[in-house]
Amino acid sequence: MQKKIAVLPGDGIGTEVTRGAVEILKAVADRYGHEFQFNYGLIGGTAIDKTGHPLPEETVTLCKDSDAVLLGAVGGPKWDHNPPHLRPEKGLLSIRKHLSLYANLRPISFYASLSEASPLRKEVIQDADFVIVRELTGGLYFGKPSGRRVEDGQETVVDTLVYHRYEIKRIIELAFTLAEKRRGKVTSVDKANVLESSRMWREVAEEVSKDFPAVELEHMLVDNAAMQLIRNPRQFDVVVTENMFGDILSDEASVLTGSLGMLPSASISSEGPNLYEPIHGSAPDIAGQNKANPIAAILSAASMLRNSFSLEEEAKAVEAAVESVLEAGYRTADLAGGRTKSLTTEQMTEEIKIS
Amino acid sequence: MQKKIAVLPGDGIGTEVTRGAVEILKAVADRYGHEFQFNYGLIGGTAIDKTGHPLPEETVTLCKDSDAVLLGAVGGPKWDHNPPHLRPEKGLLSIRKHLSLYANLRPISFYASLSEASPLRKEVIQDADFVIVRELTGGLYFGKPSGRRVEDGQETVVDTLVYHRYEIKRIIELAFTLAEKRRGKVTSVDKANVLESSRMWREVAEEVSKDFPAVELEHMLVDNAAMQLIRNPRQFDVVVTENMFGDILSDEASVLTGSLGMLPSASISSEGPNLYEPIHGSAPDIAGQNKANPIAAILSAASMLRNSFSLEEEAKAVEAAVESVLEAGYRTADLAGGRTKSLTTEQMTEEIKIS
Ligand SMILES: CC(C)[C@H](C(=O)O)[C@@H](O)C(=O)O
Ligand SMILES: CC(C)[C@H](C(=O)O)[C@@H](O)C(=O)O
Repeated sequence: MQKKIAVLPGDGIGTEVTRGAVEILKAVADRYGHEFQFNYGLIGGTAIDKTGHPLPEETVTLCKDSDAVLLGAVGGPKWDHNPPHLRPEKGLLSIRKHLSLYANLRPISFYASLSEASPLRKEVIQDADFVIVRELTGGLYFGKPSGRRVEDGQETVVDTLVYHRYEIKRIIELAFTLAEKRRGKVTSVDKANVLESSRMWREVAEEVSKDFPAVELEHMLVDNAAMQLIRNPRQFDVVVTENMFGDILSDEASVLTGSLGMLPSASISSEGPNLYEPIHGSAPDIAGQNKANPIAAILSAASMLRNSFSLEEEAKAVEAAVESVLEAGYRTADLAGGRTKSLTTEQMTEEIKIS
Repeated sequence: MQKKIAVLPGDGIGTEVTRGAVEILKAVADRYGHEFQFNYGLIGGTAIDKTGHPLPEETVTLCKDSDAVLLGAVGGPKWDHNPPHLRPEKGLLSIRKHLSLYANLRPISFYASLSEASPLRKEVIQDADFVIVRELTGGLYFGKPSGRRVEDGQETVVDTLVYHRYEIKRIIELAFTLAEKRRGKVTSVDKANVLESSRMWREVAEEVSKDFPAVELEHMLVDNAAMQLIRNPRQFDVVVTENMFGDILSDEASVLTGSLGMLPSASISSEGPNLYEPIHGSAPDIAGQNKANPIAAILSAASMLRNSFSLEEEAKAVEAAVESVLEAGYRTADLAGGRTKSLTTEQMTEEIKIS
C-alpha cells in the first residue's frame, strides 16, 4: 500500500513525539511491505516564527494532498502574549475548519500496569473503557458575532454558540455507529434545561437513535456528566457532546486513568484526510529534553493505520508492541512516578518493536 | 436579633432537608436569644402544580421582603417533559435574576472522617480546601438571541454568551475579597485562547488584581482546570469563573471529597437578600423516604448566619455540632456506604445539638 502522510510536528514536545511515531510507522511499512511517504509542514508557534502565520497556506495544501495527517502539539509561553490571530492555537482551530474535522474521538482506556498513576481509587477506575466523541467545528468556537461592543453605554462582550441541524446529526450518527461496534450505549451530553442548542441536540439524538435500534441512548446534563466521570467512569461506552463541553469533559476524562501521556486522538473529516494527534499538549517545561512519552503519538499513528488506511493488523501490531513494553516495566518519566529509572523518548521508541 | 427568613423547600428531598435546617435555626435562635421568623414560599415543580408557574409573584415578593432566603432543591421526572418555561429549573433561573444573585459560592472541603467516601485516593484529596465562585446571572444562561432560525435554508440554533464588563468586575472583586481572608490565591478560569468573552474576563482579572497586592492571581484554561481539579485539588484556594464553566467545574469539584450531601452554597445578591441552598439536587429517587442527608442544608443555614446576619459565633456553633456528629460516627445513608446502620433525616437533625 502506498500512502502520503503529512507530518506537522508543531511546537515543544510535538517534534519529539512525532519523530517517535514516524519511526514506528516506518517500521510498520518495512515489516508489512507498505510505502509511506512523509511530508513535513509547519503549524503553530514554529510556523509563526518562520512564516508569520500559525497555519501557512502550504500546510493546508500539503494536508489536502495527503491521505492522513499526523500532528504533534502546538503552543508555548513564547507566543502567549501574541494577538489572538497570531497564536499557535489559531493554527489548530484553522486546520480543523480547513480540513472539515468535525469529530474528535478520544478513547479513554485503563492500563492495569499503570493503575498506580491514576488519582482515582483502583476500584473506581478499573476497567473503564469509553470514547468521547467531541464535535469539533461548531458551537462557541466559531460562532459569530464574537467581539466587543458598547450597549446602553456599557462595555459588553459576546460569543455565539451556533449549530446547524446537519452538524448535530452527523456527529451523533458517528457516535451511534461507533457504539454499534462497541458495547451499544451512547450517552449524549447537553444542557437541555438551559440552552436552546442543547434542546435541538437532544431532539436530533432521539431522531438518530431510531435508526440504531440495537444501541441504547441516554441523555445526561453536562454538570452531571462532569460528576459521573469521576464517580463511576465505567458506566460509559460512547459519550457524544458539543465542542466546548467536549473540550472540558475530554480533558477531565484524560486524567482519570493516570495515563495522559498515553492517550491518542483521531479527528475525522467529512471530506478529506483525517488528523491524528496525541491528547497531551506541547509541554514547554520538558520540551527538547528527550523526556516526553512518545506513546500517545505512536498510538495516534496506530489509529491512523486503522481508521484512515484500514490496516487493522498493522494497527494491532503497534498496540501490542506498546502493551508489551509497558508490561515489561519500561516507563518514561511521566509514568515512572519518580520511583523507577526512566527511559528517554528515543529509548522508549526503540523498545517498541513491531513484529 | 430579629430576622425574616424566606424558606423555599421546592421539590423532592428539598422539603425534608429544609425542615432539618429550620429546626437547627430554631435551636440557634433559642440558644442565643434571637427571633427568626420563617415564611414559606413556593418554587419549582410544586409551584407549577399549585399555581401554574415555577416562580409565582408572591414568592418573589416574599423573598424581597426577607433578610435571607433558604432554598431546598427543585426538579423531578414529573416535570421533565414540560415546555422550557414550565420547568422547575426555570424557577431557579428566574429567582437568580429577580434577586440579582450574581455570585454562587461553593466551599469544597475535605472531611477526614469521610475520606473513604471519596473516589480519589486519600493522598490526592486530603486537606483540599477551596471555594468555587461562579458567576450566576450572565453568560450563556441569559444571553439573547437564544432560539431557532433558518439560515441559507438550514435549520439553525443559537445561544449567546454575553457579559457586561461590570458583571465580570464585581464577581472577580468578590473572589479577591474572599481570597484576602483565606490563603491569598485566586485562580481565574477562562478559555481565553478561544473566546472573546474570556479575553475580557482575563483583562478585568488583571485590572482588579492591582487593587489586591497581597493576593496572587493565576489564570487557568477551563480544560486544564477540569484536569487539575482531579490531579491536584490542593493547589486551589479561590477559583472564579463564568456561569457555564462554573456549573460544570463546581459539580465536578463537589464529588471529589465524597461528601456531596454535605456541601452548602451561598448565592450573593448585589442588592437584596442572599440565598442559601445545598449543592445537591432534589434526588427524586429517595424523596419522601426520610433518608436524605440534611447536613448540606444545615451548613447552608450556618452560612446564612455568618454571611447575611454576621452571626459568626452562631455559625461556628452549627458547624461544630455537625463536625461532632460525624466524628461520633453518625451517618445518613449517602455516607454510610452500605456498611453501618444509617440515620434518617430526622434522626440526623436531632443529633446535631447546638450548644
Ligand atoms: C488549544 C485549544 C484551542 C484546543 C481546544 O480548545 O479545542 C485544545 O484545548 C484542544 O482540546 O484541542
Ligand atoms: C438546574 C440548573 C438550571 C442549575 C444550573 O445549571 O445553574 C443547576 O445545575 C445548578 O448548578 O444550580
